[in-house]
Amino acid sequence: MNFRDELAERAKMVNKVLDQFLPPANAYPPSIHKAVRYSVFAGGKRLRPILVLAGAEAVRGCAETVMPAACAVELLHTYSLVHDDLPAMDNDDLRRGQPTCHKVFGEAAAILVGDALLTSSFAVLAQLSQKAGVPPERVVRVISELAEAAGTQGLIGGQVADLASEGDTVDQDMLEYIHTRKTGALIRVSVRAGAILSGASEEQLKKLTGYANNLGLAFQIVDDILDVVGDEQVIGKPVGSDQRNHKATYPALFGLDAAKQKAAAAAEMALASLNRFGAEADFLRGLVHFVITRNQ
Amino acid sequence: MNFRDELAERAKMVNKVLDQFLPPANAYPPSIHKAVRYSVFAGGKRLRPILVLAGAEAVRGCAETVMPAACAVELLHTYSLVHDDLPAMDNDDLRRGQPTCHKVFGEAAAILVGDALLTSSFAVLAQLSQKAGVPPERVVRVISELAEAAGTQGLIGGQVADLASEGDTVDQDMLEYIHTRKTGALIRVSVRAGAILSGASEEQLKKLTGYANNLGLAFQIVDDILDVVGDEQVIGKPVGSDQRNHKATYPALFGLDAAKQKAAAAAEMALASLNRFGAEADFLRGLVHFVITRNQ
Repeated sequence: MNFRDELAERAKMVNKVLDQFLPPANAYPPSIHKAVRYSVFAGGKRLRPILVLAGAEAVRGCAETVMPAACAVELLHTYSLVHDDLPAMDNDDLRRGQPTCHKVFGEAAAILVGDALLTSSFAVLAQLSQKAGVPPERVVRVISELAEAAGTQGLIGGQVADLASEGDTVDQDMLEYIHTRKTGALIRVSVRAGAILSGASEEQLKKLTGYANNLGLAFQIVDDILDVVGDEQVIGKPVGSDQRNHKATYPALFGLDAAKQKAAAAAEMALASLNRFGAEADFLRGLVHFVITRNQ
Repeated sequence: MNFRDELAERAKMVNKVLDQFLPPANAYPPSIHKAVRYSVFAGGKRLRPILVLAGAEAVRGCAETVMPAACAVELLHTYSLVHDDLPAMDNDDLRRGQPTCHKVFGEAAAILVGDALLTSSFAVLAQLSQKAGVPPERVVRVISELAEAAGTQGLIGGQVADLASEGDTVDQDMLEYIHTRKTGALIRVSVRAGAILSGASEEQLKKLTGYANNLGLAFQIVDDILDVVGDEQVIGKPVGSDQRNHKATYPALFGLDAAKQKAAAAAEMALASLNRFGAEADFLRGLVHFVITRNQ
C-alpha cells in the first residue's frame, strides 16, 4: 500500500471510532448531537489522531489501544476550529469546503458544540484506563499535557495573540509565538500522548518531542504557503484570506522562497530527531514527507 | 463559629487556592488572564467547591487534599456562567451584581475565557495525583464523571433544552430535565468527587448521591422562588427575569406555596440520605439548612 492510501486507511479507522464515541444524531437533545456530528465529520485529514497512533507505534506500542486518545485529540482540534470560526472571532463562513457550524446551526449552537467537543475530549481520554486498561498514571499525565496544550499558554493563548495582532505588523517572535501555540502545541501533544500511553522512556519522549516540534513548524509554514499558492478547490477555503485579513504568515514575513526553505529545513530536523529509531518510526518519517508535499 | 461564618471561611480558603491555580493577571497574553480572573473573582458563594470539601469529610477524607478538585468544579461552573451569559445565549448584562464578562471584555474574549476555564478545570484535576498524591485511578474516575456531568447529557444538554424551550410552555418533565442537568449534575458530581477522591465505598457514594440530588433540587427551587420574591440588591441581578424571559420555573408551574413545599420536602430527603452518617456529615447537613433559608 502506498503512503497516501495508508493515511486514508488510518483516517477511516479514526472516523469509525469517532462515530462510536459520539452520541447518535437523534440522542436527546438532538439539535446539539446533530451539530456535533456535522462539525466532526465535515472532512479533515485526521493528521493529529494519526500522529497519536504513529507515536504509539514508534515506541512499539499498540495503535488500537491508544485509539481513544487519537479521537480525543481530534475532538479537541475540532472544538478549536468551531470556536475560531465564530463571528466574534475569525468570522469564517467556510471550513474544509463546507459552511461553518454557526452558519448552519446558529451561533449559540456553535458555541455549545465547541464546549461539548472540548468536554468530550476529556471524557474519552478517561476511558483509556477504565476500558482500554492503560495504567491510570499514564492517562492522568496525558490529560494534564492535553489540558496544558489547549490552555492559555497553548492553543487559547495562540488564538488570543492572533486576534490581538490582526492588522498589526507582526515580527518573527510573535509569528512563532502564535504558531507554536495554535498549531504546534496540539501536534506535539498528539505524538507525545501516543508514546506516553505506550510506556515510552523519557529519552524517547524527548526525541519524539523534537520531531513533533519540527513537524508542526513545517506543517504551519506549508499551510501559510498554500494560502498564497494553493488551489481553492483542493484546499476547500478561499486562498489569499491570510493576506486579506492581514494575518501573520511565513511567506508574508520572509517571502515565498525563504518560507519554502524554512519548511524544508524543519522537515530535515524532524527526520534527524528520529535517528535512533528503527523501522517502528517509519510512519512518522512518511508523515514528514506528506506534510511537506501536501497540496491541501 | 456559626455556620454562615464557617461557610464564609471555607469560601475564603477556596478563593485563596483558586488564586494560586490561575496564572497572574499579567501573564502573557495578559488580556485573557485578566478576564479569567475577573470572571472567577466576581463573587459567588463557592457552594460547589464547599460541597467537594464536605463530601470528602463525610467519608473521613481530608478537605485539604481534595482542594484542587474543589477549585476544578468552580472553574467549570464559572465557564458555564460566562458562556450562558453570552449575547447568542441568555444575553445577560449582570452576573452576581457585576457586568458580565462579555460586557467588560467583549464577546471573543468571553468565549475564550469560558474555553480557558473549562480546560483549566481538567488541568487542575490532573494535578491531584501528580502533586497531591491521590491514587490516579480515583482521579481518572472523577475526571470521567466531571466530563459526563458537563457534557451533552449534563450541563450542556440542560442549556440546549433551556434555550430550545424559551417562550414555550414547559411541563414538569422538561422542567426537571433542564434543572437536573443545568444545576443538579454539577452539584452531584461535586459531592461525589470529594468522596471518590477520599476512597468512599460504593454504598457511601450511593447515599451521598441521594443527598446531592435532593440538595440540588432544593437549591434550584429556592433559586426560582428568589427570582419571584427576592431582593434585587441582595441577589445581584434583576428579579422577575425568569418570568420576563418565559423561563420554566417551579413557582410558574406549581405556584409559590407548592414550590416552597417541594423545596422543603427535598431538603428533608437530603437529610434522610445522611441517616447512616455520624458527625462527619454535619457540614453537609448544615448546607441543607443554608440552601433552604438563603436569600441570595
